[in-house]
Amino acid sequence: MTPQQLWQRYQDWLYYHESLEMYLDISRMRFDEGLIETLKPKFAKAFQDMDALEKGAIANPDENRMVGHYWLRDPDLAPTEEIKQEIIQTVEAIQAFVQKVHVGAIKPPQAFKFTDILSIGIGGSALGPQFVAEALAPDFPPMAIHFFDNSDPAGFDRVLTRLKDRLNSTLVIVITKSGGTPETRNGMIEAKAAFEKQGLNFSQHAVAITMPGSNMDKVAKSEGWLATFPMFDWVGGRTSELSAVGLLPAALQGIDIRAMLAGAKAMDAATRVPNLKTNPAALLALSWYYAGNGKGEKDMVVLPYKDSLSLFSRYLQQLVMESLGKEKDLDGNTVYQGIAVYGNKGSTDQHAYVQQLREGVPNFFVTFIEVLKDRQGNSIELDPGITSGDYLSAFIQGTRAALYENHRDSITITIPEVNPRTVGAAIALYERAVGLYASLININAYHQPGVEAGKKMAASILELQKQIMQALQSASEPLDLATLAQKAGSPNEIEAVYKIVRHLEANRRGVIMNGDRANPNSLKVSAG
Amino acid sequence: MTPQQLWQRYQDWLYYHESLEMYLDISRMRFDEGLIETLKPKFAKAFQDMDALEKGAIANPDENRMVGHYWLRDPDLAPTEEIKQEIIQTVEAIQAFVQKVHVGAIKPPQAFKFTDILSIGIGGSALGPQFVAEALAPDFPPMAIHFFDNSDPAGFDRVLTRLKDRLNSTLVIVITKSGGTPETRNGMIEAKAAFEKQGLNFSQHAVAITMPGSNMDKVAKSEGWLATFPMFDWVGGRTSELSAVGLLPAALQGIDIRAMLAGAKAMDAATRVPNLKTNPAALLALSWYYAGNGKGEKDMVVLPYKDSLSLFSRYLQQLVMESLGKEKDLDGNTVYQGIAVYGNKGSTDQHAYVQQLREGVPNFFVTFIEVLKDRQGNSIELDPGITSGDYLSAFIQGTRAALYENHRDSITITIPEVNPRTVGAAIALYERAVGLYASLININAYHQPGVEAGKKMAASILELQKQIMQALQSASEPLDLATLAQKAGSPNEIEAVYKIVRHLEANRRGVIMNGDRANPNSLKVSAG
Repeated sequence: MTPQQLWQRYQDWLYYHESLEMYLDISRMRFDEGLIETLKPKFAKAFQDMDALEKGAIANPDENRMVGHYWLRDPDLAPTEEIKQEIIQTVEAIQAFVQKVHVGAIKPPQAFKFTDILSIGIGGSALGPQFVAEALAPDFPPMAIHFFDNSDPAGFDRVLTRLKDRLNSTLVIVITKSGGTPETRNGMIEAKAAFEKQGLNFSQHAVAITMPGSNMDKVAKSEGWLATFPMFDWVGGRTSELSAVGLLPAALQGIDIRAMLAGAKAMDAATRVPNLKTNPAALLALSWYYAGNGKGEKDMVVLPYKDSLSLFSRYLQQLVMESLGKEKDLDGNTVYQGIAVYGNKGSTDQHAYVQQLREGVPNFFVTFIEVLKDRQGNSIELDPGITSGDYLSAFIQGTRAALYENHRDSITITIPEVNPRTVGAAIALYERAVGLYASLININAYHQPGVEAGKKMAASILELQKQIMQALQSASEPLDLATLAQKAGSPNEIEAVYKIVRHLEANRRGVIMNGDRANPNSLKVSAG
Repeated sequence: MTPQQLWQRYQDWLYYHESLEMYLDISRMRFDEGLIETLKPKFAKAFQDMDALEKGAIANPDENRMVGHYWLRDPDLAPTEEIKQEIIQTVEAIQAFVQKVHVGAIKPPQAFKFTDILSIGIGGSALGPQFVAEALAPDFPPMAIHFFDNSDPAGFDRVLTRLKDRLNSTLVIVITKSGGTPETRNGMIEAKAAFEKQGLNFSQHAVAITMPGSNMDKVAKSEGWLATFPMFDWVGGRTSELSAVGLLPAALQGIDIRAMLAGAKAMDAATRVPNLKTNPAALLALSWYYAGNGKGEKDMVVLPYKDSLSLFSRYLQQLVMESLGKEKDLDGNTVYQGIAVYGNKGSTDQHAYVQQLREGVPNFFVTFIEVLKDRQGNSIELDPGITSGDYLSAFIQGTRAALYENHRDSITITIPEVNPRTVGAAIALYERAVGLYASLININAYHQPGVEAGKKMAASILELQKQIMQALQSASEPLDLATLAQKAGSPNEIEAVYKIVRHLEANRRGVIMNGDRANPNSLKVSAG
């Protein structure tokens, strides 16, 4: 293609959203008109599916659920008046609560004001709040946010140790749909213990975001927590950033949540248009389909050229991979779908792995995210007429061109600046693109059946641990691993037994191993 | 395979390093003995190559350089007495400098002590220091570290704004081999401007890590910076963590750098053994070869189950992808090699994308990193006999088993705890595995020819920007983009011109665009 033809292709496919001032450029994806024709019926169906979903159809058939995250941004679309009012009242309740916290009308018993937030949640209850905090929190936010997003004891300790002197002014938000997610429950118990160790009343520091009627909800109410905010049955974890899950922590940090919602609403409207060429989410879905042959054959490398967006790819990992990574399609065929997502930020990643992107295994496409505004205030000149922002802008252009030259395709999203409106819009854009792409490949984007197996196996490991401890305590002499497995009632699980014992011993939990560590069969295990 | 057979395979392939207390388990990679036989000659050559490299051969033929990062940990191996002394003296100089900084013998002009570090560098000059800071810095380090690792003006501003009140006690480390890396230079100029704005003498706060004789070295010496430490010609950026690049920031944070070096030295010795089954780096290289068919057909997903290791995958992205992502092999054949790397931490990522890993597109293998010790001190019980660390341990076992059951392979590395010794060893393990794997696939792991194209294109964009500004300033009326490109001397670069102009306008840099933004051809550009 000549430069002139390429410039024409750029203009032919350029999407521009006027009020959001966002651009989407898919000219560097090398699809042709033939693919567009082939996909037309699929897109027609995808638009229909999306329309039905927005109207309240059961879009998640396995779990018999509606999928309503679009209603959060435009409650008038909600299928019932009750849902509409729930949405409106939740946002109002969040703002009223936050205002009281900020002025000290809601305050901790032993301090004048809440200064810090400890957000306890995992997956969709952490990734959105983390991304938004990094992207949008002011330099000196009214409250600083910290996260428990795992079940790592050392991780808990690090956060709690650093917060030690301010625990008496820390607000804890526990985010869990049912209360049954172990990492979140564990974090809550560990946090509570730390509060109690300092003689602080945890309930007077705690807020829950959970399903009305859940176990968590009951605990919060019976213990008299400061507040509870609802998680809705019809909002999945990975699309919950614009529900209370994301809005409460954002508002506490001084981020304009109405602007986030407005940005998402504007993008939702733009991506509702049932026309491929004028719908940016459809253009993204088309590009993904093209890149990976509708089978996820290429990884999605996400490179925002802006430090504050460095967690966007991690946010998208969940949204894209958990939604699209499915074994079965909606007709029950085995399809092994998905798109792998990774990336951090440019131009930093140019110095990490653009070597491979440009020259190595061509198993990816890039999504560049360009931010037009360099900074608040003016820039100094580094060379005559050239600023550090000009360099960054040149790097994104240079890398995009260098990749294209070597037949590596890319998408470019351009936003005017990183603000609540554009971040809300970006979230909405990807939510819709995932939904449309799921229709193209005929999968259920709203369930996650594959995570159960690991959870069940983990639960059985914990059960086995209890059996092992009992067996060891009743043993009269050191046992080899096979015997121990037998006595613990799991003769086939010698390896699992070995690993449990090794972990217990390393933590001085009343287990001793003797023998040659390079040779597990030689080990003898005893209580002690 | 029956559970018994699998347990046998586990033991057959288990590698254990006694003094490091590290395990490597590749039993869940489904290779067979046939592959081992096939690879034997390749491994024999790989061990020879590594031996020659360690003895000072020109292991990076394109750039005519020795590759000496192993000497850093065992200076007795250095090929000349001069190199040996350079290595020893550099570590001593770092420790002497750090000691003086910590006690305030080296101090900023307007404060009693240095309290903070601003590390300016990108790629290998940032990823290692960031990984190590996250992994090993104490909860309240003697000096807190901050990074400039990009050319993002808003990113500079965020760090500088938050540091504002402590800039007078901030030590700046500029890390650049030649002084020519634009992001690093830009960061240095922006930092210097911020210091000067506060009336602080930048030179009295600055340290350089650079090649002796480089431009940076000359500037640092002529301006009287506090110190300079050497980068060696024979250490590449991505293997520089155990040179001054990583050691100085680590030591300033109170991390035991001698222990890091000792851990790496012990691992280097273990991975020098010319025997596949007893060399953990060779076992890793074998596993990678098996997984991706020697062609990088599967991504490497790195999941450390420990919060403090969450940047390890980002560190490995550079080490693995920049080393292995090559178009040509050593014989000049086009091979498009590489292995894509991504991952954050478990069990967090289980809630992000294990859905796809378990059920979706099978284009990856996992490397689990297990840490036996849960925390300093004792754990509370969450359920009778069960701690949060038991949960984490069960999650890693459960996920590994669930993936294996669905024919998703994995490697497991087990370390006793996260400390300077094990982190040094982990870095050394992967450096060697990359080197051996590069020999298996016959590529040069030590150059990065593919990054030049993007750099050149970026430079030409900046040059074009200057031409555009001149053309606009001498134009008597608004110009359309094609005319502007013509007048700027690049008639074929209309798209690049458009993007430059759009960026300049968004930053009020004396450029105005009028017309329909959805339709670039309609735009008229003028100075103003």
